[in-house]
Amino acid sequence: MQNMKITCTKEDLIHASVSIQKAIAVKTTLPVLTGIYFCATDNKLEMQATDYEVGISCTIPAQVEKPGTIVLSGKYFQDMVRHLPGDSVQISSEEEDRTIRITAGASQFNLLSMPAEEFPYFTPFTTDKTVIIQDNILRELIRKTVFACAVEDTRPIFTGALLETDGSGQCIRMVATNTHRLALRKMNHQSEADEQLKMIISSKILNELSKIMANDHPQDVKITWQRGKVGFQFDDIYLKTCPIDGQFPDYNRVIPPTFETSAIIVTDELKDAVERVSLLARDGEYNVIKFIFSEKQLMISSNNPDIGKAFETLPIELTGKEIEIAFNARYISDILKIIDAPKIVFSLNTPLSAASIRQHNDEDYIYIITPVRTK
Amino acid sequence: MQNMKITCTKEDLIHASVSIQKAIAVKTTLPVLTGIYFCATDNKLEMQATDYEVGISCTIPAQVEKPGTIVLSGKYFQDMVRHLPGDSVQISSEEEDRTIRITAGASQFNLLSMPAEEFPYFTPFTTDKTVIIQDNILRELIRKTVFACAVEDTRPIFTGALLETDGSGQCIRMVATNTHRLALRKMNHQSEADEQLKMIISSKILNELSKIMANDHPQDVKITWQRGKVGFQFDDIYLKTCPIDGQFPDYNRVIPPTFETSAIIVTDELKDAVERVSLLARDGEYNVIKFIFSEKQLMISSNNPDIGKAFETLPIELTGKEIEIAFNARYISDILKIIDAPKIVFSLNTPLSAASIRQHNDEDYIYIITPVRTK
Repeated sequence: MQNMKITCTKEDLIHASVSIQKAIAVKTTLPVLTGIYFCATDNKLEMQATDYEVGISCTIPAQVEKPGTIVLSGKYFQDMVRHLPGDSVQISSEEEDRTIRITAGASQFNLLSMPAEEFPYFTPFTTDKTVIIQDNILRELIRKTVFACAVEDTRPIFTGALLETDGSGQCIRMVATNTHRLALRKMNHQSEADEQLKMIISSKILNELSKIMANDHPQDVKITWQRGKVGFQFDDIYLKTCPIDGQFPDYNRVIPPTFETSAIIVTDELKDAVERVSLLARDGEYNVIKFIFSEKQLMISSNNPDIGKAFETLPIELTGKEIEIAFNARYISDILKIIDAPKIVFSLNTPLSAASIRQHNDEDYIYIITPVRTK
Repeated sequence: MQNMKITCTKEDLIHASVSIQKAIAVKTTLPVLTGIYFCATDNKLEMQATDYEVGISCTIPAQVEKPGTIVLSGKYFQDMVRHLPGDSVQISSEEEDRTIRITAGASQFNLLSMPAEEFPYFTPFTTDKTVIIQDNILRELIRKTVFACAVEDTRPIFTGALLETDGSGQCIRMVATNTHRLALRKMNHQSEADEQLKMIISSKILNELSKIMANDHPQDVKITWQRGKVGFQFDDIYLKTCPIDGQFPDYNRVIPPTFETSAIIVTDELKDAVERVSLLARDGEYNVIKFIFSEKQLMISSNNPDIGKAFETLPIELTGKEIEIAFNARYISDILKIIDAPKIVFSLNTPLSAASIRQHNDEDYIYIITPVRTK
């Protein structure tokens, strides 16, 4: 147990504890992983948490009277700090007892410390495999693809998204699929020529990364990797994780090279119609809604034998032949929720082959869905 | 199956379906109770739902082309109406089939009808047992007491609150208790001399009543009752229910006539301190926090053997002798959340006898709590 005495602002402590929160282990055989590691040196405090799947570190300014290292139970820390009075918080520990004192105004918490020497403290690894991209580009890649991952799957690669660059420093891609649908987003970015990055990262971790990257001003994210590890560094935060092992399916073979039918549809009209029609479908086993694309209009319908039927018609611009096809309503509404363009292009071949939804006039984002066979 | 054809505004249909929603049966042996009853006559549409415990009716304006009566599944109706396009909704049925058509813009729902003749249609009962009170008075009575009810109890009277008048038309009271705490609110009101009302009403129903009474402008609520029934009429809504049978405890015997110690405390300071201290107590079996009232200050503390201790001190104005006492933290924080006054009076006798919390300078609201025995 080390002697330590520091003062931080409440705001910084909240920022750090929110940033590392998701890495605090909930169930673990190693109790120290349910804790937050604090390391105070030269006017700064580093806070870390890790459950081995992901590790997050955040470094904030601190007035360090006595440097030191402690581990505190993570379960209450964020809640506690958030409720403390005033703007400034003092954290101190004494060699003679196992207690850590957290003081703010007339509030005092005496918390039991955990053994700091058992905490698997980590530092950014050094490697020349590096790519730098802007946080808004990385957030866009995540937002447009990760929802298409499987939530649970016996094949772990489908619970993650593939992040890859082509090594030219010009293009970065993210792809996710649960085998019934696939989302692919490409982005141009300017970076010095880099090593080719190609790894599958857990959807849970990508979503968390996206959340903690949110910042008022754009910033660079430095991605470093080597065999079995990847790290993301930005602002005062470092996140490291292990990519998911396995071979991602060749997404180029999933995307049909041509389509026989294409319809241009107003995004919000389609979104609202699908939402209404699926009200009656959603309790059904497959949540099926039927689409009839004809020359001037699209008719969408659902049938729930216990409740009734719903019908919607909306105008479309059709190119190619008419077609009847059915989809899982959720796979359609998921994509419509995150499309930013006012119009989409819905492209189809046959009632049993994969269809695509794209943003109108945008070649860099494509969504593929498998239809549902109906009687 | 009756022929019916009406047009309503979407806004009115949403208002009516939200108002009656809680009365739609979810689990029932009589399927028609999962439906909404629609009765269209002379330029108005009455919608009703009942699960026998509570019945709610709401009447809205309608353009009635053909009057009639139908019952529709209630499960989807509110969601469906909310999502319909445009401002106006047409509802129609035909004698020849069992389908009811709901049309708005290019959206059409063909819903199966339920047998309207099986629906237990209700009308306000006539009686001269009546009292009229303003909705804001009734909402205040509910807000200040109903949280103190038991959520589940083998003795049903503790899951409801007692509503009573003294028959003078001057005073109305509501009382709730779960046997560990009790809340009593008295309000003055002006009404013509009325019969004495005294009945226990389910907390769930009172909370729902409070929600649907919320209106932009103050309005009168007419309460009518007779043996085994009570009805609330306001605006375009009528709610009827059966009071809970049983003898409510004599709350006058629960309220100590005098206290040996009284402390005046700033409400927000106490609320924040209790919230922080209870962070460590809330996972404990009894969620116990300790209060030490001394001459100049109150010290509040909690002790969680696995995590640590929390201490708070705050200034108080004490009259009487010093005392140490412990309470269930939730019973303290519940009342502090709904107190409107800037200061409270905390009054005590001994560490094992009931204490009270009141708003400073307010004799019409009293909260009684039983302390927790500590080692």
